Amino acid sequence: MKKINPSIPKGTRDFGPEEMIKREYIFFNLKKVFSKYGFQNIETPSMENMEVLKGKYGEEGDKLLYSILNSGDFLKNKKISSNTNYNKLKSNISKKGLRYDLTVPLARYVSMNRNNINFPFKRYQLQQVWRADKPQRGRYREFYQCDIDYIGTKSLFCEIEIIKIINEVLSELRFNDFIIKLNNRKILIGIADLLNIRENFSDFCMLIDKIDKVGIEGIKNDLIKRNFNNKMINALKEILNFSGNNEEKLDFLKKKINKSKIGIEGIEELREIITISDNKNMNTIIDFSLARGLSYYTSSIFEVIPKKNSIGSLAGGGRYDNLTEVFGLKDMSGIGISFGIERIYNIMEENNLFPKEIEEPCKVLVTNLNKEVVNFSMEIANKLRKNNISTEMYLSYSKLKKQLQFANNKKIPYVVIIGEDEKKVNKITLKNMNSGNQQLLEVKELLNILS
Amino acid sequence: MKKINPSIPKGTRDFGPEEMIKREYIFFNLKKVFSKYGFQNIETPSMENMEVLKGKYGEEGDKLLYSILNSGDFLKNKKISSNTNYNKLKSNISKKGLRYDLTVPLARYVSMNRNNINFPFKRYQLQQVWRADKPQRGRYREFYQCDIDYIGTKSLFCEIEIIKIINEVLSELRFNDFIIKLNNRKILIGIADLLNIRENFSDFCMLIDKIDKVGIEGIKNDLIKRNFNNKMINALKEILNFSGNNEEKLDFLKKKINKSKIGIEGIEELREIITISDNKNMNTIIDFSLARGLSYYTSSIFEVIPKKNSIGSLAGGGRYDNLTEVFGLKDMSGIGISFGIERIYNIMEENNLFPKEIEEPCKVLVTNLNKEVVNFSMEIANKLRKNNISTEMYLSYSKLKKQLQFANNKKIPYVVIIGEDEKKVNKITLKNMNSGNQQLLEVKELLNILS
Repeated sequence: MKKINPSIPKGTRDFGPEEMIKREYIFFNLKKVFSKYGFQNIETPSMENMEVLKGKYGEEGDKLLYSILNSGDFLKNKKISSNTNYNKLKSNISKKGLRYDLTVPLARYVSMNRNNINFPFKRYQLQQVWRADKPQRGRYREFYQCDIDYIGTKSLFCEIEIIKIINEVLSELRFNDFIIKLNNRKILIGIADLLNIRENFSDFCMLIDKIDKVGIEGIKNDLIKRNFNNKMINALKEILNFSGNNEEKLDFLKKKINKSKIGIEGIEELREIITISDNKNMNTIIDFSLARGLSYYTSSIFEVIPKKNSIGSLAGGGRYDNLTEVFGLKDMSGIGISFGIERIYNIMEENNLFPKEIEEPCKVLVTNLNKEVVNFSMEIANKLRKNNISTEMYLSYSKLKKQLQFANNKKIPYVVIIGEDEKKVNKITLKNMNSGNQQLLEVKELLNILS
Repeated sequence: MKKINPSIPKGTRDFGPEEMIKREYIFFNLKKVFSKYGFQNIETPSMENMEVLKGKYGEEGDKLLYSILNSGDFLKNKKISSNTNYNKLKSNISKKGLRYDLTVPLARYVSMNRNNINFPFKRYQLQQVWRADKPQRGRYREFYQCDIDYIGTKSLFCEIEIIKIINEVLSELRFNDFIIKLNNRKILIGIADLLNIRENFSDFCMLIDKIDKVGIEGIKNDLIKRNFNNKMINALKEILNFSGNNEEKLDFLKKKINKSKIGIEGIEELREIITISDNKNMNTIIDFSLARGLSYYTSSIFEVIPKKNSIGSLAGGGRYDNLTEVFGLKDMSGIGISFGIERIYNIMEENNLFPKEIEEPCKVLVTNLNKEVVNFSMEIANKLRKNNISTEMYLSYSKLKKQLQFANNKKIPYVVIIGEDEKKVNKITLKNMNSGNQQLLEVKELLNILS
């Protein structure tokens, strides 16, 4: 057989045991909170039909979709020549693609199963997505997303619960300093109405979205290019620079955009949310410059950022009115939030937020010194496991030193040493690998100490 | 936007909340046992470089690999015409494929990380694999595999532990009647030596492998085609028809194949394993007709089948000597077993082996009747969640009947009713949805009952 240099595709990662323990710790805590709030887990296939994916993520997104070649003789009966139109050929020879996010599959799932779902439907989903993006630090071609969504309800209690869930998840993970930024797309429409630029709304949102990176001055040239005059720029500045608490911000803006019915609607929705969340110290801050990139949001939007080190967000989401319409299911308002697992992982790693206890691969190694004592060793290993203590038994007869070295390399905190002396008195020696201490113990005592 | 009929690719599945609860119940129990034995979780990328996958699964397997199109202008500068060689073009325009099993990625992972791994390496892995197979009942194009492997040890304690793990996993899942069939490839070589057909060994294994479906008589014609004379057929029949306990089987065969050194080695390995496993009632049965399809097995092989309904296996595996050699890492003997998650799921479903308790989507629904009581409702919901009771709060002000109906449809077993009467006396009404009983309770009492 030809020798192959083992490697993995660019932008993908192996997760070894130590990373997996930490990743699963995050997953476990997220799922625990979601379940407590009555969310239910679903999984959708990694592959979706191309027509389900295409056109949902904008032109740029479409380019990042991974296509899977049809199986069999994929080119059979396809007319090809040097003049062949690539895109057409591509869509002919590849009818399936890999999941790009969890939102479109959710919309597809809900539309397909509309008759079996009890609405409002509260689901969480924690699966990989794939994007043929240029890999760089913190950006991968395969990564996990973790979404919760409410589908089939306009209730603002969803927003309030989501804010609680964010707080609960992040406090379980021992994050201290974070902010939940809130805004409402309807408010942004109100501002656009005030500036008389409603027809360029999505363009306006894209510009606004840049402000947290470059400031208002940073988008001034772009505004001028778009025919913003000084008066408009100053009006926008005044709104975005206004400082005050959440209530004061809403009161201030309400006066400004009082001619926009939809803008006022947004103000009142946001007021209902912050009345409750402010009351409970939920870390919410209204930020009128929050716009969120995705075009499907229609009212509440939010984004969670760490106070320090605010590069990138920990979570983000919003409310949408028409997610399932393209699949033939109308009037399904919903709201969702996506937790940035990979970023949360990196911040936790940098700040040592993972508890030390989880890093033990296994609690105890039972030695396996020779044929005379192996049965006793096996018996002890079995007893430990029966008591739910994770136990590795050394697999071959070797010198004690080698077996202790193995435990040490693997960071196993305890070794149960069983030699002929121990067998004679029907006891075991427990060695604490951190302190180096050894004790001769009854089996009962061993189980008590390690349980 | 063009309306799209929502659908999923053939051979793939959505897993809704009810299935996910059951699937996760299986996953949880498997992982619990694996961890107890000191196995550690890894994950590898869904995509592997094509050269890693190609040629590892035989000609038939290669055809079932899913290829991913290179991103960008994948046909750029490729010379194509109607005479183009498809296979060559395919390998040009698609450098990556989806994982076909968990074994080749493990070999690739171990070879890449050989300097950071403490051998013997005990890993488990529970991830999807993809095969462009013809979908049929119980056969999917995307499905989960669940493997444990020991890499870097020839110790027969691995075999013994694996037999224990199988027993423990299946008893956790409440399987009663199953058999672990054991054999050893070296024994099969011994039989092939006896019949003087060593040069056609892999062909012989493939034939033997069919016996559990068609019986010895069923392969008689195939044997004759392969120049087996009557004497050889009778010798084979005698071996395979021999009945006795495990020890008697080994003693009987040892006499038959005593001229084959490798055959005797196999006998003695198997004897060491059954001496311990028989002692502990481990459900092991030696079956000399067990061959296992995969060519990389080199000694112990095993397969777990239900006693009744023996269509297909619950788990299977074996020992291999040269798994990582193709990636440049020699002398890494190992042994692995793969649990057939999808089959285990189906049998558990058919036999009602899932505990009823896990099927609750959520323990309690808190009503949300009107603006006067909503704060009290929210307070109770929070208290329940703080006590780790999964709680859904109804999201909009609706009539009680509608809210009870919702709980009923979702099979939520308890409803906490909070109206103005309850608010006045600072109590709640707990309705048991199964019995229909209602009680007026202090909040403390509520928490006690539901905890």
